[in-house]
Amino acid sequence: MPPSPLTIAKLTKPTSGTIAGWVANVRSSGALIFLQVRDGTGVIQAVVAKDAVDAKTFAAAKDATLESSVRITGEVKNEPRSPSGWEMKVVQFELVQKAAEYPIGKKEHGPDFLLDQRHLWLRSEKQSAILRLRDEVVWQLRSWLHAHDFVLTDSPILTPTAAEGTTTLFKTDYFGEPAFLAQTGQLYLEATAMALGRVYDFGPTFRAEKSKTRKHLVEFWMMDAEAAFVDHVGNLEIQEHLIADVIAETVKARLRELEILGRDVSTLAKITAPFPRLTYDEAVARLIKQGSKIKLGDDFGAPEEELISQDYDQPVFIEFFPTTIKAFYMQPHPDHPERVLCADLIAPEGFGEIIGGSQRIDDYELLKKRLREWKLKESDYAWYLDLRKYGSVPHSGFGIGLERLVRWIGGIEHIREAIPFPRLLNRLRP
Amino acid sequence: MPPSPLTIAKLTKPTSGTIAGWVANVRSSGALIFLQVRDGTGVIQAVVAKDAVDAKTFAAAKDATLESSVRITGEVKNEPRSPSGWEMKVVQFELVQKAAEYPIGKKEHGPDFLLDQRHLWLRSEKQSAILRLRDEVVWQLRSWLHAHDFVLTDSPILTPTAAEGTTTLFKTDYFGEPAFLAQTGQLYLEATAMALGRVYDFGPTFRAEKSKTRKHLVEFWMMDAEAAFVDHVGNLEIQEHLIADVIAETVKARLRELEILGRDVSTLAKITAPFPRLTYDEAVARLIKQGSKIKLGDDFGAPEEELISQDYDQPVFIEFFPTTIKAFYMQPHPDHPERVLCADLIAPEGFGEIIGGSQRIDDYELLKKRLREWKLKESDYAWYLDLRKYGSVPHSGFGIGLERLVRWIGGIEHIREAIPFPRLLNRLRP
Repeated sequence: MPPSPLTIAKLTKPTSGTIAGWVANVRSSGALIFLQVRDGTGVIQAVVAKDAVDAKTFAAAKDATLESSVRITGEVKNEPRSPSGWEMKVVQFELVQKAAEYPIGKKEHGPDFLLDQRHLWLRSEKQSAILRLRDEVVWQLRSWLHAHDFVLTDSPILTPTAAEGTTTLFKTDYFGEPAFLAQTGQLYLEATAMALGRVYDFGPTFRAEKSKTRKHLVEFWMMDAEAAFVDHVGNLEIQEHLIADVIAETVKARLRELEILGRDVSTLAKITAPFPRLTYDEAVARLIKQGSKIKLGDDFGAPEEELISQDYDQPVFIEFFPTTIKAFYMQPHPDHPERVLCADLIAPEGFGEIIGGSQRIDDYELLKKRLREWKLKESDYAWYLDLRKYGSVPHSGFGIGLERLVRWIGGIEHIREAIPFPRLLNRLRP
Repeated sequence: MPPSPLTIAKLTKPTSGTIAGWVANVRSSGALIFLQVRDGTGVIQAVVAKDAVDAKTFAAAKDATLESSVRITGEVKNEPRSPSGWEMKVVQFELVQKAAEYPIGKKEHGPDFLLDQRHLWLRSEKQSAILRLRDEVVWQLRSWLHAHDFVLTDSPILTPTAAEGTTTLFKTDYFGEPAFLAQTGQLYLEATAMALGRVYDFGPTFRAEKSKTRKHLVEFWMMDAEAAFVDHVGNLEIQEHLIADVIAETVKARLRELEILGRDVSTLAKITAPFPRLTYDEAVARLIKQGSKIKLGDDFGAPEEELISQDYDQPVFIEFFPTTIKAFYMQPHPDHPERVLCADLIAPEGFGEIIGGSQRIDDYELLKKRLREWKLKESDYAWYLDLRKYGSVPHSGFGIGLERLVRWIGGIEHIREAIPFPRLLNRLRP
């Protein structure tokens, strides 16, 4: 195997060697050429001096255009004026491929142009930082779940029925019968929780919704967790520790990327469990006081979530929503049968809902009644009902929208930047 | 929060407390009731003695049926005759829910019946062990990639075109235009590799193939990795270290589960990098010698893979397949232009192909030529061609089929048991 190139992000002391990467910037001043070379982990300043290299090498360096691929060899020394703190004095310069004129320049581009060029736009400092942040958030979520004895049980994507209604489902033909792309793996997780105790899934989900907001994607990633013998109270405790720990570890590991994104990390440093709780009824009363037109029984939208989160620098749980505006499988509140044992977690700073969860109905007869009330076919849920017939237990779970969490942690304006190749209304490319 | 129950798998010394779980077996002999109680992490033997509990408690224990949910409290002591090595002397017994007559008994059931009951079948000792094994394999794969600087960049599932032809693709309507469920994220990874250097994805993929074998699923999970500035030789080195390390760590962490599966772990202990390499031409010559009817230019099927693997107790790389039977994007062999710089990794013991990989074409003109030869529309691959226009570099990657890897490590007869809810020809339920 050829000797590995140096990795910019891993430089710790002066050294010499080769860096393989792309030209992120170039300017020349007569006998000196200054290049910013990125290798995917960081950016280093490279200096090619006319008197330090042969004429062919100098010509090759002079020929390098924006985003050309290069291999540069030389001594690496500290240089405070370089973005990475390092500078290479180049003695060998190989122009691997000279890039054609790069379509993304320094001028402002509109979002449609940048999304059309997503395969190239990803190379920009900011977009690369977001991808690294997303990678870390996923890693921290999975690490926390692994450390807390949650077992990964991937849920199927192709499903015969809709967990929460069919209006926003993508449909396909499955060898002659209709199939739908799942919007949640929760129902399947309830089955694996009865086998393994604590389980999670983490995969893509799909919502064929014609909404165009800064918070919605057509294809997005969800992490669902489910735990047997855990009630509503325990459910919230799991969520707040998971979120607080994941944020603390992510900030620690991705400080440089958060800096690139201009994120005010001090607001994230304040996040600690436990998180404040507010009942739905309390929240509505408060909203009305603040001038909102909301009525008891209405669901919250983005404006309501934003208003509520203004009072906190922590995420806040809104508990006990009305039965009628939540899913059929939620356990009724023991003292208020028209409310359910659920909670949404609202992020601070106006980033909106990032978790939805609930205790699930564990009584066979009540679940059957709910299916009837919601006009869902019992035969479609026969296996789900079985879970209440054979060793039913109190159990609870929740789902985290990955891109919403990444958007919050990164302080990212638009959710479409929180996923490598966003799928939006009328955007299926690249 | 109520005190957490004991976790069977974590018992290390005699203690007392509550275990919450399900009855995996029960028998009574007059004044003694013996229960096997599983909590999702393990199984403990529980003894309810008539003279140690009140009449109501004894009656509740006597009433417990197979798969009933229970909370049992008492002293836990070592007991070599118990499957977990532990036994509880029960002083409190709560029957949480009495299970109806459990459909899965001790007698042999056919595969169709068990697959219909998949939501319950998962609770069996063997199926639970497979789920835990799968969880660990995923964890080890991701841990290795994270430790080796691969950045997760999830690829889209909904795509406008087919990377490798449209015949086996699921189709859906994407707001008025056709979309397909991706069979690989590789092309997208090539874009993110140019931004980040080393990248991977890990998600569900779909093949609408009418095949009914022990090695095929309609919906399965793939891990794709891609690395910039890595050639074919380096590509194989990454793969063999990844596989050898993942197997070693998984065996260490899941010895109990592998025992339950009856896996001969000694064959896995032999797996060490480097793996042997065989060219396609050498393999064909050897197969013909062994009596196979294969001809130069033919692809390998399961019988050929099995024959080849018989000569090795390591996985073996088959390198340099004919251009005509592989994908359009593979880099030609420099000395044999009718062969490509690719390799399939064949697992030992007849478990078949688990990895496919190659160096990718990095030359713009050659890639355009190949698109023409393969009759693929250039406009569909415009963004993919761009990667060869703006800083193209030698790069390579590979894809691992998760269920095939789990099947091999677990020594599992049928791949349908290596995923929680298998999707097969004519099986979309539960």
